[in-house]
Order: sequence, then C-alpha cells, then structure tokens
Amino acid sequence: MNDDFILLAHGAGGKKSADLIRGLFLKHFANPTLNALGDSALIEGGSRLAFTTDSFVVDPIFFPGGDIGKLAVCGTVNDLASAGAKPIALSAAFILEEGLSFADLDRIVASMKQASEEADVSIVTGDTKVVARGSADRVFITTSGIGLLSDEREPPAPNRASPGDAVILSGTIADHGMAVMAQREGIRFASEITSDCAPLYGLVGCVLEASPNVHCMRDPTRGGLAATLNELAAQSGVCIEVGESEIPVNEDVRVACELLGIDPLHVANEGKMIAIVPADDAEDVLAAMRNHRYGGRAQIIGEVRESPAGRVHLRTAMGSLRILDTPSGDILPRIC
Amino acid sequence: MNDDFILLAHGAGGKKSADLIRGLFLKHFANPTLNALGDSALIEGGSRLAFTTDSFVVDPIFFPGGDIGKLAVCGTVNDLASAGAKPIALSAAFILEEGLSFADLDRIVASMKQASEEADVSIVTGDTKVVARGSADRVFITTSGIGLLSDEREPPAPNRASPGDAVILSGTIADHGMAVMAQREGIRFASEITSDCAPLYGLVGCVLEASPNVHCMRDPTRGGLAATLNELAAQSGVCIEVGESEIPVNEDVRVACELLGIDPLHVANEGKMIAIVPADDAEDVLAAMRNHRYGGRAQIIGEVRESPAGRVHLRTAMGSLRILDTPSGDILPRIC
Repeated sequence: MNDDFILLAHGAGGKKSADLIRGLFLKHFANPTLNALGDSALIEGGSRLAFTTDSFVVDPIFFPGGDIGKLAVCGTVNDLASAGAKPIALSAAFILEEGLSFADLDRIVASMKQASEEADVSIVTGDTKVVARGSADRVFITTSGIGLLSDEREPPAPNRASPGDAVILSGTIADHGMAVMAQREGIRFASEITSDCAPLYGLVGCVLEASPNVHCMRDPTRGGLAATLNELAAQSGVCIEVGESEIPVNEDVRVACELLGIDPLHVANEGKMIAIVPADDAEDVLAAMRNHRYGGRAQIIGEVRESPAGRVHLRTAMGSLRILDTPSGDILPRIC
Repeated sequence: MNDDFILLAHGAGGKKSADLIRGLFLKHFANPTLNALGDSALIEGGSRLAFTTDSFVVDPIFFPGGDIGKLAVCGTVNDLASAGAKPIALSAAFILEEGLSFADLDRIVASMKQASEEADVSIVTGDTKVVARGSADRVFITTSGIGLLSDEREPPAPNRASPGDAVILSGTIADHGMAVMAQREGIRFASEITSDCAPLYGLVGCVLEASPNVHCMRDPTRGGLAATLNELAAQSGVCIEVGESEIPVNEDVRVACELLGIDPLHVANEGKMIAIVPADDAEDVLAAMRNHRYGGRAQIIGEVRESPAGRVHLRTAMGSLRILDTPSGDILPRIC
C-alpha cells in the first residue's frame, strides 16, 4: 500500500477497500477461514456454522424505505443468506453519540425488532457504548450473525462459478444508494426514491429449493453490482458477461444517476441477491424469485465464460462489449 | 426512563446503562436468550454455543499495557470465557476516521493478532467502514465471538450463586481504568500504571479443571467490581459480602484513586475474573488461579449469603458493613 493515511475510499467497497483488506488485515490475521473472504465465514463447530459481521454508519440514519436499524439487521441476515445459511442468532452493538434522542433510538431499535421478526431470527446479545458529542455521528451499529448450514448440500461459495452458469439478479439495482444520497443531499426527484433494504433469507430459501446446487450467491452492497461481479469473477477464476439491457433499473433511479453522473452499476443495494446457477436450473430459479415478494423483477442478466479469467464484461445496449471494472474511488460514502 | 437524550452515563456500565438496556433494548428485543443478560448469549445450534459482542471506543487508543486492538480481542475472549465457553471464532468490525495513519492501524491489527494467538482463536470475518474526519474518533472496533460449551457440565451463569459459596477474585483491581485515565489526562504518578488487559481463557480453563461446578464467572469491566458483584447478586437473588482488606489493589493505583477521589471498586478491569464456587472448592480454585500467570495475586474476597437478596455488602477495614452499590454516574468514560 502506498498510502500513509486512511481515506474515505478505503471504506467504499472498491479497489482501495480490497487493498486495505489484503495489504493490512490479511497480512496479520491470515487463516484459512478468513482467507476465503466470503461475506460470512464458515466454521466447523459440531454443526457447520456461518459467521458474519458488519458495521453500519449510514448518514442520514432515517431514509425512505428504512433506517440504520433495519439496514443493520438486513445486511447481516443477507450475508448469512448468501452463504446459504439460516440465520439463528444476531448480536447488536451500539456506539451512541451523547445527546442522541431516545425517541430516535427507540425508533431505530423498533425497526430492528421488526426486521429481525421478518427474518425469523432473534437478537440474543448486545452492547452499548456512549461517546462524547462530536466523537461519533449520532449512532453506529455493528451487527454480527450466526447461521446454520445444511449438511445436505455444498454451500454456495464465491469461488464456485463455472463456465456455462447463468447469472440471475433478483431485481432493480441502485435503489438503496440513491435513496440515501437523495435524502442526505436534499435532492428531490419527480417521485421519492425508496431504498430496497429487505431481509432476503426467504428469497434465498426459494432459490435453494429451486436449485439445491446454486454455485454462488452474493448481495451486491457497497461498490454495487460491478464490485460484486468482479469479486465473484476473481474468486472463481472465470469471466462473467452481463447484458446492460437485462439489468433492471427503476426509471427514477436511472434519471437520478444520469443527472449526477453516477453509474448505477456502482451503487449499493440492500435488498438484492445475485445467484449464479447451472444453466439447466436458470428458469426454475428465475420463476422462484419472481414468485417471491422481493424478487418480482428478477432477470437472467448474463452467463459465466471461461476467459478472460477474473474479468467482467458488459454487453452494452448498442451490442459492444466493455470491461466492467470495480469502482476505485469513493462514489457514495456512508450509504451503509 | 425519564431522560429524553443519551448521556455519557448511559454507557458507563452503571445504573443508567441498566435502565437503557431494560427500558429500551429489552422492551423491543425481548427473547429468552437475550433476557438472560449474560455477557454471552447461549445458543442451541447442534452443539451449545456462546455468542457475545462488544464495541471498543477507548481513548487514547494506545495506553500502557495495551491498545484498542488488544482490548477488543481480550474483552470478547473474556466474555466467552466467563460463560465457560472455549472461544472458537472472532469477528472484527472497524469504523475508521478518515486520516487515521496506516502505521497506527497496523500496530492495532498486529496487537489483535498477538492477543488472538495467545487466546488460541482466529479472527475469521470482518468489516471496515470509513467515515469523514470529525464523524468518529480515530478508530472504533467491534468484536464478536463464538464459543463452544462443554456438554458435560452445567455452564457457569450469573444466576447460579448460592448461599455458602466463596467469592474469588483473580488479582488486583482498577489497573486498566486508571492506566487509561492517567494516559489520557497526562497524569504522571511515581511509576507508570499498566493496564491488566489479558485474554483469560487459559485462567478460566484452570478454574474449571479445579472446580467443574463453578457457579458464576464474570470479568469485572465497566462499572468495576462493584457493578459486577451487584449484577451477580441481583440475578442470583442472593447477598454477596466481600471484605475490603481482601481485595488486592496495587499501591500506585490506590494512591492515584485517592488523589482523584475515585473508588477503585468502581474502576474497570480488563484482565480479571470473579469466580463464585462451592465453598469446598474454594481453596482448589484459589491455588489453580495462583498457579496461572494471570492469577498470581488471586484472593478469596468474600462469600454468598441468603439475604438481603440482591445486595452487596462491603466489610470495611474497620470492621463495619456498608452497602456497596452500582456506580450510577459516569466515572471514567471511554475506558473500553
């Protein structure tokens, strides 16, 4: 790493984040479980467990479609779900800024309760720290989660995408990031952009029923669809080719992105899942997603090819191919 | 709760912290596992697991005897150990302030690695967020941990203290809180006060070997020995009586506390364990602790009585009894 100081970009989920993880955290912590760099770690402990953690620092803490509490529960549930694990317990650790109102905290905690009920998981342990005014920004929440893996099938993993597989996306992209951004900057569009923040274990259950042999699942959060596809291509050593016209984007979101010069492929989602499945299962998985409340606009967006390994190609609406890279900079800080 | 806003005291581990937990978090999240309010939650998932989380916001991030990284690993290892669980996996989530130096972060992460090696546990998953300058104070770390419980014995629990039990403390109190405080305020004493920050699973293993039927274990962190004894007395519905002269305090720490008007019984420890054991096992447990590198100054500090239930009594050096209450205010903010 050439940098001496932490930049906002180190938290943006793009190339600088990857540098930080590999250059610093893996340098010290390296072990086979962590090195897999899944969104959840897989642990052998009697039964097979998935274990995940995420800190949430979204600003503002309330936004159309959710709040930091709902986000904290959904983000962790979705990381477990991506590993094919049923969430069995969550923890919640709060860092509160002195002066936060109880009314706001109550609203956040109530929203966590509601999201965890929908995901059928309990918050079983927690912690609270308070720091002086100015030492944090209102509230930060770190949730960790434990999930139980089925013994009956090989769990989906980021290194299992194979040439010939279909790439399926559960719905529209960029809703979450643009909703938070619009709220924070006070930008008004024709209609309000709403975050897609949702707990996806139910959707994932339907996908696993339709295709027990799903190769990869991943929720495209920070860095957007582009970052997630690049991670999967790199870890599986394959090329992923997706079609621009196949990727659903809400019209308001598309307009907002164009106005602000932001590529929706780089914008975070909090209620979407990518599934990479054997081609023969693709139609069944698509149908299963579309039958679920959070997958109504699912699409087969592309396929896995053998080479060039580690690359993502975007077939544009005009029919040309371009390389879709991981965003390197910091497009939208503090969207999760 | 009568308060409208979060105060520093809500994070101090005393009465206001308890109000926040019961009045707000339990109101929303109530479930049998969380309601037990152990430092770890016990989960049934194939085998029995303990699950715990803590955020660390200590200021300064480096102090004599440790740093925020060592503290984050030890704190979580010790919460699992108190539940009688062998730590099997840790997660680490970082909230970094833009501008933090890589050199500092590297030092912190290296220290986490060292502490986790000593505790024989791996950090298997993590997360990093970066917030703009002024939105956090350098670095906050949230660690969560999973521990495996033995199937062969009833695990120690905060509600198992019984009349007649002996109360054993593994060493001197108030070292950690006073070390951090002195460093932060730039106060110099005759010699440097050093934090006791240490991973205690090894010590706990020796205690469990000496007394498989240990009733309670708890590491007296925020709120100090006073807060922890009060929690145990309340949850077990017993009276705990301890002798002031039996509680070891390093001379420098005692002088510093006197100078600053702070009761060492209210000051956080990060490398001490309280064990409440059947009287017949007391000498064996004491010997086991004293044989361990982190228990050289262990003492039997008191005993459990039937009534008044929920109270802690301190037998003073003069022979009188006084009620030892949970600290209500905020004595030392951001010591962990």
